[in-house]
Amino acid sequence: MDIVKYMKQRASAVGEALPSFVSSLEGAEPRLAEAMTYSLAAGGKRLRPVLMGASYEIFGGKAADILPAACALEMVHTYSLVHDDLPAMDDDDLRRGRPTSHKVYGEALAILAGDALLTDAFTVLTRSRYGRRVRPEGILKAASILSRRAGACGMVSGQAADLGAEGFLDRKLTPARRRDGLDLLSYIHLHKTADLITAAVEMGAALAGAPERDYRLLSEFGRDIGLCFQIADDILDVVGDKKKLGKSGSDARNHKLTYASLLGLEEAGRRAEALIGSALPKLARVKGRPGPKAALAAMAEFVYKREN
Amino acid sequence: MDIVKYMKQRASAVGEALPSFVSSLEGAEPRLAEAMTYSLAAGGKRLRPVLMGASYEIFGGKAADILPAACALEMVHTYSLVHDDLPAMDDDDLRRGRPTSHKVYGEALAILAGDALLTDAFTVLTRSRYGRRVRPEGILKAASILSRRAGACGMVSGQAADLGAEGFLDRKLTPARRRDGLDLLSYIHLHKTADLITAAVEMGAALAGAPERDYRLLSEFGRDIGLCFQIADDILDVVGDKKKLGKSGSDARNHKLTYASLLGLEEAGRRAEALIGSALPKLARVKGRPGPKAALAAMAEFVYKREN
Repeated sequence: MDIVKYMKQRASAVGEALPSFVSSLEGAEPRLAEAMTYSLAAGGKRLRPVLMGASYEIFGGKAADILPAACALEMVHTYSLVHDDLPAMDDDDLRRGRPTSHKVYGEALAILAGDALLTDAFTVLTRSRYGRRVRPEGILKAASILSRRAGACGMVSGQAADLGAEGFLDRKLTPARRRDGLDLLSYIHLHKTADLITAAVEMGAALAGAPERDYRLLSEFGRDIGLCFQIADDILDVVGDKKKLGKSGSDARNHKLTYASLLGLEEAGRRAEALIGSALPKLARVKGRPGPKAALAAMAEFVYKREN
Repeated sequence: MDIVKYMKQRASAVGEALPSFVSSLEGAEPRLAEAMTYSLAAGGKRLRPVLMGASYEIFGGKAADILPAACALEMVHTYSLVHDDLPAMDDDDLRRGRPTSHKVYGEALAILAGDALLTDAFTVLTRSRYGRRVRPEGILKAASILSRRAGACGMVSGQAADLGAEGFLDRKLTPARRRDGLDLLSYIHLHKTADLITAAVEMGAALAGAPERDYRLLSEFGRDIGLCFQIADDILDVVGDKKKLGKSGSDARNHKLTYASLLGLEEAGRRAEALIGSALPKLARVKGRPGPKAALAAMAEFVYKREN
């Protein structure tokens, strides 16, 4: 299986559908709709919707059946990037090589565009047509998964903890502080990154009406690969810099709390590998179609091995 | 019927339940949960949840059956206030006599608290226990109403248009510009204020499984009283100032686009009255229990007559 090709094809189906969902929001203020579309068009791997589609297909349907839910999840992910980039938050000028929303539309409209992407994720999720295999109970469950994983039980708390962690490495790293740092970092990674990736596979299973046992296995699989994704990201950040700058990470990066900065690159790599080792047997135990399971397994490997 | 007493009693039931929904969000970052609770505890009339309860009761149930949905709507309303008050938006230091969220918790956490209130409105709505009259289809429909009325089809677009209207009155008001101003203002009022009040009565009807005809009548009733509420607010702003300052509105107020500034107080008052005149016959045609209908009618009058 050529997983890169698979992911690209699946991602482009999502990328093509996203603007139509925004333009279906009747009566939207034009600049607001433009700002929403601008951020959705920034592209990226569309990892979450692609995971959702594969998870759904394990139980017999086609990913196209649940395209609205896949797009809804991408809208939530996109809102989180728009708000994270705000001057009051990470204050980033660029995202995927393009000016961030607040640089183009101003801070007020960027806040509102994020708000609308988040709110209308639920409009798209609850008001769209699905394939006929999808039951209303499945849609209701998908909405409840999305809100819980994205809200104060999940992603928003991860971001709040991340803000609180700023400056953690400015003080000397005693063994006790290293342990505190690892606890804090586990919380941040779990919520800021893994929760929405977990939501992806959970929503796919819920929309398919998967048995409880398989739902739980997939949920744990999602958590493992979500955590692995973030560690791999941290490693790439350092290794990418090394290649580009010829040194091991910028000063700023050395002061950001990551597994790489707390444990070193090698131990961080071992942890990422262990997470994949934990994820794959859970996926193997799920009862369903082998093709989509193989795609999920290949994506798990991809998450860990990409670019390195 | 003593409508003020009725509203106070109903509002306190909502106010008492709200913190328990926030504390049920397991694993939430403590400062984030505190900021969410701080804004929810600011009180106010809880007009939207009280309207929802009365609308639901027309069809035979008790407002307590749908307390989670009523609290969810109040959470969405509260998020909108937290974000509206931000420095990048209206930059307000005080809300209901207390420092605004960003004054207490900083801008970053205020943005996140708003995000979490909005997201977890859907968690509360979709994951809570309801009275046994409430069907899953009703909850799904309530979620779809809430997201549509609060998102880019509704409230967020109202706020975006309001931002765009700043400075409208800095230039001379020709008859043509007055007409443009009225069009713009109608759009702002409809979306910024009326949509969430409409959602209140619509959600009540949807959760009750009301017939389509009654649902539509209540929706139009909600729109009328929502628009009336905003005009009355604009009038109160001027009249309140007059009483307090001994003059007709502050300079700043004279430069804000309102019905009062465009049409004068008298004509604005006539429009508000006409909206109530349009709302009440629609309510009268709804088939259901007379007690809750009388409560809704009295609330419509209250919206128009409060404080003047």
